[in-house]
This record gives sequence, C-alpha cells and structure tokens, in this order.
Amino acid sequence: MQTVTVPLGAQSYPVWVGSGLIDQVGSLLESVGAAEGSILLVSNDRVFGLYGDRVKASLAEAGFPVLVACLPDGEKYKTLDSVQQVYTAALEGHLDRASFIVALGGGVIGDLAGFAAATFMRGISFIQVPTTLLAQVDSSIGGKTGVNHPLGKNLIGAFHQPKAVVCDLDVLSTLPQRQLLNGLSEVVKHGIIGDSELLEAIAANPEQAKFGQLEMIEQCVVRSLLLKGQIVSQDEREAGVRAVLNFGHTMGHAVEQVAGYGKYTHGEAVAIGMRGALELSEKLGMLEPSTKRQLVRILSDCSLPTAVPGCDPAGLLSAMFRDKKNRQGRIRFVLLEEVERPVVRDDVPPEAVQEVLEMLTA
Amino acid sequence: MQTVTVPLGAQSYPVWVGSGLIDQVGSLLESVGAAEGSILLVSNDRVFGLYGDRVKASLAEAGFPVLVACLPDGEKYKTLDSVQQVYTAALEGHLDRASFIVALGGGVIGDLAGFAAATFMRGISFIQVPTTLLAQVDSSIGGKTGVNHPLGKNLIGAFHQPKAVVCDLDVLSTLPQRQLLNGLSEVVKHGIIGDSELLEAIAANPEQAKFGQLEMIEQCVVRSLLLKGQIVSQDEREAGVRAVLNFGHTMGHAVEQVAGYGKYTHGEAVAIGMRGALELSEKLGMLEPSTKRQLVRILSDCSLPTAVPGCDPAGLLSAMFRDKKNRQGRIRFVLLEEVERPVVRDDVPPEAVQEVLEMLTA
Repeated sequence: MQTVTVPLGAQSYPVWVGSGLIDQVGSLLESVGAAEGSILLVSNDRVFGLYGDRVKASLAEAGFPVLVACLPDGEKYKTLDSVQQVYTAALEGHLDRASFIVALGGGVIGDLAGFAAATFMRGISFIQVPTTLLAQVDSSIGGKTGVNHPLGKNLIGAFHQPKAVVCDLDVLSTLPQRQLLNGLSEVVKHGIIGDSELLEAIAANPEQAKFGQLEMIEQCVVRSLLLKGQIVSQDEREAGVRAVLNFGHTMGHAVEQVAGYGKYTHGEAVAIGMRGALELSEKLGMLEPSTKRQLVRILSDCSLPTAVPGCDPAGLLSAMFRDKKNRQGRIRFVLLEEVERPVVRDDVPPEAVQEVLEMLTA
Repeated sequence: MQTVTVPLGAQSYPVWVGSGLIDQVGSLLESVGAAEGSILLVSNDRVFGLYGDRVKASLAEAGFPVLVACLPDGEKYKTLDSVQQVYTAALEGHLDRASFIVALGGGVIGDLAGFAAATFMRGISFIQVPTTLLAQVDSSIGGKTGVNHPLGKNLIGAFHQPKAVVCDLDVLSTLPQRQLLNGLSEVVKHGIIGDSELLEAIAANPEQAKFGQLEMIEQCVVRSLLLKGQIVSQDEREAGVRAVLNFGHTMGHAVEQVAGYGKYTHGEAVAIGMRGALELSEKLGMLEPSTKRQLVRILSDCSLPTAVPGCDPAGLLSAMFRDKKNRQGRIRFVLLEEVERPVVRDDVPPEAVQEVLEMLTA
C-alpha cells in the first residue's frame, strides 16, 4: 500500500493506494479518527452489489454500526432529491456531527455523498472509496462535491475535503475497458499539464495503460494523485492555479452537452477537448506543431477520440458560453505552451475558436 | 450610520446599522466589491411588498440589473425545494461565480438565501438585509445558513459568511410587538452571557426596549453585533466557545418542538429555556439564587415567558436528546456561573434536569 498525502495544512488527508483495500476500510477509518458511532455507507445498487458486503464486514469488524443509503445507479440520479434521501437515512440512523459518511462508488456517488456530508448539520466528515479509475485519479480528491440541476451539471455544490481516500486497485479489474479509458484520459491530462515522466511512461506502453496492467495503473493513480494534490494544495477554492486542471474541459464539457450526456464518456469528451485546446494553442503560435502532433498521437494510441464529426460547431460554442468558469461573458481556456506549461487565457480570438471547432466537427 | 466589523481575518465583513439604509443597498454593495453583473434579490411576498421596490430602486441606481426570487412567507417554506427555486432563478438569470445574492427578510430568508449562495456553483457572495430584530441581532451574522428537513429544523446547512450586513433600524418600526420581543430575547441572552452593561441598560428601561424606542434598539443591535461578532471570530465553525451563544437554546428548541412550531416564537422559547438554564445552574450550586431571581425578573419585565405550563416534561426531555449539538447521546447545556460567565456542560445529572422541567411545566 502506498500513501499519497494531499497537503492542505490542518485539513491534509491521506490517499491510500493498493490491492485489497476494500477489506480494510474499517481499520483505515479508525486511523483517521472515526470513533464510536454509526457510519452511513452511501453507494449505488450496482457497486453495492459488488462490494457492499465486504465494506460492511470490514466496518463491522472494526466495531462500527453501519447504515446504508443505496441509490439507483446513474448520472441522472445525481440530484438534490437523492441528497435528500441521504439526509433522511442519516437522520433516521441518528447520525450526529461526529459521524462519518463513506462514499462507495464512482464520481456520481462521491460527489453526491460528499455534498450530503458538506451540508448535513453544516458539515460532517466523509471518506471516499472510489471504484472507478476516473474517480481514483480525479474526482475523489480535491474536495469538489455537488449535484446536477435540471439546467446544468454540477451547478449545485460545495468545497468539502474528505478525511481520507481509499483507492483499491483490484476493483478496477472488473471495469469495462471503456470505463478504464474514461479515467485514462484524465491521467494523460495530468501528464500533459504537469508530469512529463508519467506521459512518457504511457506513450511508451499505451497497451499496458489501456488494458489495465496493474503496475502501470498503480503508477497512473499514484502520480495523478501527487500532481492533483499538489495543485489543489496551492488553490483549494479554484481561485487561480487550479484552473489548469480544466485543460481540455472547456470544449469537453460542451461536447458532453451537445452530443447528449452518455454518448461520450467524460474522459472521451475531455480527450476531444484536449485536442481542441492543443489545436488552439498551435493556432495562436504558442505551441510547436510537432509537440501538438505528438500529444494528439498519445491520445489516439490510448484509443481516445480526438474529434467529434458531425457535431454542430455553433451548438458547441454556445454551450461554452454557459460554462460556470466564465467571467463576464468571456470563455476561459486552458492552453499549452509546452508539456508541463499550461496557461489560462480568456482572450482567445473568436475566429480561432471557430476554426478549431470546425476542424473538430468536420 | 454605525459600522460593526465581524473580525474573521480575510473574511471580515462590515455590519452597517442606521436609519434609511434600505435605500442605500446599491451603493453599499458596491463598497464591498460587487462589480458589474446581475444581483439576485431573494425575499418573501410580505417583505418584498413592503421594501422590494425601494431595494430594487437602490440597486438599479447603482447600475445593477436585478433579478428577484420571491418565496411565500413562513418557516414551512424553509426547505430544499425553495432553495431549488432560488437556484433556478439564478440560472435563468445567468448569474455567475462573481454574482451576488441579496437576502431581504427575516431569519428564514437569510438562512435560505445564504444556503443557496453557499451552494450555488460551490459558493457565491451574498449580503444580508435583515428586516426583523431577531435577524439583525442574531441570525444575519455568524455565517450559519441552512434549511429544515421534514425530520427537524436547520439540519441541512453550511457555514458561509456574508460579505456585508445592512441593518436598517427604520424597518423595525413596522414590526408587531411580539416580533420585537422575539429579537429582544436574544439581546437579553447576549447581555447575560457577555455584556452586563447592555443587560443593565435593558433592566433600567424595559419599556423602551419592549416598545422599540430608537436609541435603545440601536444600542441593542450594535452591542449584540459586537458581542456575537467577537465570539464568532474566535470560533467560526462552532467547535468550542461559540457554544455559549446557545444559552437557553437546549430547552428552548425542545419547547418549540414539543409545543408545536408557531405556538411560541423562537425568542419566547429561548426565554423559557434561559429560565431553565438559570434554574439548573442554581440547582447545581453554580449560580447565586439572588442572581437567578434578578435575571428571571429581567425576562419578565421584558414581557417574555419564563414557563411553559401544561407542557409534557417527558416530551421535552426526549426532544433534548435529539439535539444536533449532542455528542454520544449526552445533552449539552450552557449554564451560568454569573453574568458574563457561561459554561458548557454535558454532565448534568438527569434528576436535576427532570426537576427543572417539572418546575417549568407546572
């Protein structure tokens, strides 16, 4: 088991990465200060069916009474109504301010359970047990929690850091390959914006990454956590430098929205968005054409899409204008000068954006 | 106009107290950094009917486009559904992370609009324009925001400090007297736990306080804000010393619940709870009987109730056991050694509690 610390002063927390950790959740919880009192385990039907009994057994062994709030599986249940169900389970189970919530699942469960923890009795502790590669390398750390609103994704939320994150690598072996690629896209992003060694390791062995070879995946998870943890620690509330983590996300979010949620995974959409950001960077004379080609090639070698043929460029543009990261109506892009040198820009000429969108959708 | 600063480091904020401030909300907002962009004014039908046009005019004069989310009046609308309505208004009006919410109303509106601000796009700025004495002296500062759950009050929430608070004393003149007493109870509480001069001023002229004489009310508001601001600044998240602000609230909350919400105002219930805490303090040998008598007398002189005849003592006890401030099943009381010397205790013998409850309900 490796331990990565997310350095946030008094709020620092450990992320444990290793095999078989699902069976150690109870003792790990004790080590971060959970005392007597009930634990509320929040999960979805599918994940709970796979791992619920093992997590419950581990908690019971450590002496914790366990309550369960099990939601239906899927992004469409990432709503305020589901959060209300979690509150109700917490109240019926007599959780108090010293209680812990354990989030067992992918990003939807982590975000939702984290938001419930952020807002139950004005904030209780929670730990994340992410069961997808995407959640392990990205959403489970950093403290962003929230749910969707009928008018848009992740518009309701709070910053609330977990007390710990438990990444069991074994659970990734049951993921469908497309789900593995979903997370791999964010790993490649981490490589591009801040870890050239990670990027080179993937470029040298894309097959190992794509097919989830254990040592490769462990490296992807650990190095992603180190990089993201370091960025988050500089800017917990996303007022500045943290914005670089949105590399590929401006166009990526637009692709998700316009193509219709579910058509592309988040990671696929971000891969398309990264290609867009790379093309834009080249067009503005910031990035060498050879570097751009090399990076687009890595995305392709990882079987990630780099275009969205047939999609409406005007629709993508108007979706980008609605992004919650915009200020005063200007679209904010993360561009690249070279590997490990991202830059945030809100002054990109509209014609350049237009041209790139036409290239991506051709 | 007087300015009281709530000292919270980089999050410090001004509370302005004076006459006619309702007409200056726009320029005051500018002074705390609201720039271009829409303002979402959250209010209820009744208060908006009284002051909505003046606040809107003031905002328009300062150049802010104004959107309005107007909710029905009443505690029963302090729900997650109402918050969802605020989110929808914010999204339809294209608010972004640089936008401000303005809460115009009493504690229900302030708590609810503050929670919406805390959780919209993971937190945007808000200012409070409290229109009741209770909200001006208590709920508008300190950063507690939230809504009720069907299983209990204020169980969902977040800590989120306002950027400023605007206390217009003129608006208090239209309050029914019972509403004035509702706030006066918390003022007396502030006097007992930390400001003997304020307490003496009220004791010397209870009529002025009860009937809202302007200089007296100004003194009550300003001194309450100073005291509460100082306590909150020492303990923003209620981990320690802030608990003393709950003097009278352990039994007070139980009285509200058991008698049925609406039978007693919050302030009336807290007055009964303060009497209970004083009796308990005397019974445990902590407080001089003469001091207790004097303080109970001040409550009576302010026309506040000090007993709840006919209420079921067993019901009160079990409601106290459900208090969210309890830890590991122990009821937490704020007791008094003398004026300005409150103490938090969770080891009160059950028989003493029982006896006091029987005294209060006899």
